[in-house]
Amino acid sequence: MLIVKKFGGTSVADKERIFNVARRCVEEYQKGNDVVVVLSAMGKQTDVLLDMARDINPKASKRELDMLLTTGEQTSVALMAMALNSLGVPAISLNAFQVAMHTNSVYSNSRLKSIDTERIKTELDNRKIVVITGFQGINKFDDYTTLGRGGSDTTAVALAAALHADACEIYTDVDGVFTADPRLVKNARKLNEITYDEMLDLASLGAGVLHNRSVELAKKYGVQLVVRSSLNNSEGTVVKEEVKMEKLLVSGVAVDRNVTRIAVMGLEDQPGVAFKLFNHLANHNINVDVILQSVGRDGTKDISFTVASDDADEAVEIIERHREGSLKCEKVDVEKSIAKLSIVGAGMMSHPGVASAMFEALYDENINIKMISTSEIRVTVIIDDNKVEKAINAVHNKFSLGE
Amino acid sequence: MLIVKKFGGTSVADKERIFNVARRCVEEYQKGNDVVVVLSAMGKQTDVLLDMARDINPKASKRELDMLLTTGEQTSVALMAMALNSLGVPAISLNAFQVAMHTNSVYSNSRLKSIDTERIKTELDNRKIVVITGFQGINKFDDYTTLGRGGSDTTAVALAAALHADACEIYTDVDGVFTADPRLVKNARKLNEITYDEMLDLASLGAGVLHNRSVELAKKYGVQLVVRSSLNNSEGTVVKEEVKMEKLLVSGVAVDRNVTRIAVMGLEDQPGVAFKLFNHLANHNINVDVILQSVGRDGTKDISFTVASDDADEAVEIIERHREGSLKCEKVDVEKSIAKLSIVGAGMMSHPGVASAMFEALYDENINIKMISTSEIRVTVIIDDNKVEKAINAVHNKFSLGE
Repeated sequence: MLIVKKFGGTSVADKERIFNVARRCVEEYQKGNDVVVVLSAMGKQTDVLLDMARDINPKASKRELDMLLTTGEQTSVALMAMALNSLGVPAISLNAFQVAMHTNSVYSNSRLKSIDTERIKTELDNRKIVVITGFQGINKFDDYTTLGRGGSDTTAVALAAALHADACEIYTDVDGVFTADPRLVKNARKLNEITYDEMLDLASLGAGVLHNRSVELAKKYGVQLVVRSSLNNSEGTVVKEEVKMEKLLVSGVAVDRNVTRIAVMGLEDQPGVAFKLFNHLANHNINVDVILQSVGRDGTKDISFTVASDDADEAVEIIERHREGSLKCEKVDVEKSIAKLSIVGAGMMSHPGVASAMFEALYDENINIKMISTSEIRVTVIIDDNKVEKAINAVHNKFSLGE
Repeated sequence: MLIVKKFGGTSVADKERIFNVARRCVEEYQKGNDVVVVLSAMGKQTDVLLDMARDINPKASKRELDMLLTTGEQTSVALMAMALNSLGVPAISLNAFQVAMHTNSVYSNSRLKSIDTERIKTELDNRKIVVITGFQGINKFDDYTTLGRGGSDTTAVALAAALHADACEIYTDVDGVFTADPRLVKNARKLNEITYDEMLDLASLGAGVLHNRSVELAKKYGVQLVVRSSLNNSEGTVVKEEVKMEKLLVSGVAVDRNVTRIAVMGLEDQPGVAFKLFNHLANHNINVDVILQSVGRDGTKDISFTVASDDADEAVEIIERHREGSLKCEKVDVEKSIAKLSIVGAGMMSHPGVASAMFEALYDENINIKMISTSEIRVTVIIDDNKVEKAINAVHNKFSLGE
């Protein structure tokens, strides 16, 4: 068997944890399996590097930021290989150049295109544990790129797909995927299985266990994912195409508090206005989430949408830049203290009334819904951030997820 | 003009110093020159990384150590590019992969083989300052290698040669090359010019201003070197083939305190014994310096030699390993508290009596000479380390170098 194991920054934050991970990999190796380990930068190292960069140049180019950040994973893979060696197991660390981890040209948020597995296979055939830098790639200019938030998950899945691995295990500090964030909902329950689609919605909606691109990629290539704890040996949650057990109506409730709502008020009511707005944002790689368009006064219209809070300032800047040109409008409102609450479940498709049950739970708690967005297996509402805890518990109880 | 400028770790140790270097490079750039900057890792970063590695695995493989250490320069070049950008000048950082800085396969002490200058030239043609990682290379396996102590000097000279640069400036914390270490000799004097050969002897003998490989390379490719201060604008010392002014009898006095003497006593007096001894050491990339062979008792012989103190333990280990086989001997003695004192000067060739004047100076101070080694332009003696200061001043005065 070939197993890809991915460990995040907290799992390799210090010597003790590095050895915990190393021992775990050695156990797998000693069963006779081939082991590929994907690592993020140690602990808060990425933040430390970002602070150094900001101190030198608050507007540092993304190209140079990626050049700087990629030192983080290179440090952790080298130290991990040393730790594995000291446990008596042959190991080798490889970075994005060494496995030709090609991405598109976008810095700081690039997408993987291809991997050259030759070197990895050779090292595995020599019975080495291969330790590979997550999060990083190289583009056609031979410049370093990074895959954005949670990018190491994507690296792991891509490697599992390219190597036809038998399993891809994503290690985290929780026991698996829960029906809701256990820090917010006391009776949240661990799921044994979940479909790619459900996980995809949970990931993109802020459940925070897996990066959504990694789930997309896993679905595309049929890579069976296991989300499990690096702290214990519990079985975790398996993410796959079909779950055997009877589908739950709702699998989980997700919250994303890293959301900002931007309202562009009094836009000219002409064809193409929405296209122009979102095209400007797309050109700057800003992902827009929930969108709401409404009729304004005097033949104008208002468009509200949410973006990740990190992108909010840039989004507003872009809109302001075009207010004199293609985006004439009355004003731009920004609301930061909001949150996104979603229910997700493959069973939802065949059950109308799920959305209204959710709305009822919120109404019972007197929580105002600011925006709504739905898909076949998901209902999302935007609410005040300070109502999040009340709301998630109400919804979790409404669907009896804790039972 | 194309100028290569190399700055060591102390010159980029913090934000303020990074900007000092950046401003210096911008000045050059604004004269209309093409500027290539070669940097070492920031301050003590290499030592910090080595400590991390030792903490994880005291016997970490050199391959993984190089993987770890190369993050150091990558950090400094990225930050320098950001600093240059913030001063309004286009700049780009490049690492060993990006300039295909090929070396042989030896880890931790490799030799440069070739550089692909295409990318660098393109960036220079785009009027960017190009900031390149010193010290590091990649071998035929696409693994990182490092060039050993002072390797960034070598990187700078190699780049200057490959790019046909008009000058290669090595920035340091002293004003140039002195007749002796100013910390040890108060009236030491800065030299305006010095030949490659003299510099070569000074470098290899512990004057510590330039790495000897970098001088060899500069001599081979006729790269004119300038050693100058990063703290002021004084002119520094030019290192070149011929110096115009009348040759001094002795150019300088160098001291190397990083020396250990190993004495292999009672070796069988057979042909090939010395060859076997030094061949074993060469196979482990251990450079042997001063060698002294003498007749022992009862048809045996003694061979003493010096190595860099860092290599001493490994050298002894290698000899011990062969004592039962090809290197039968009575005992192996190790003496660590010694130092190497040398006088260097192209003028020495045509002046006999220079060596004896040096010995006289030491005799007058009652300093015992343990070993002697000479070349055409150099006389080296091994003395007790605690006599170094007395010795260097005596010799410096003897040849009136302070005048």
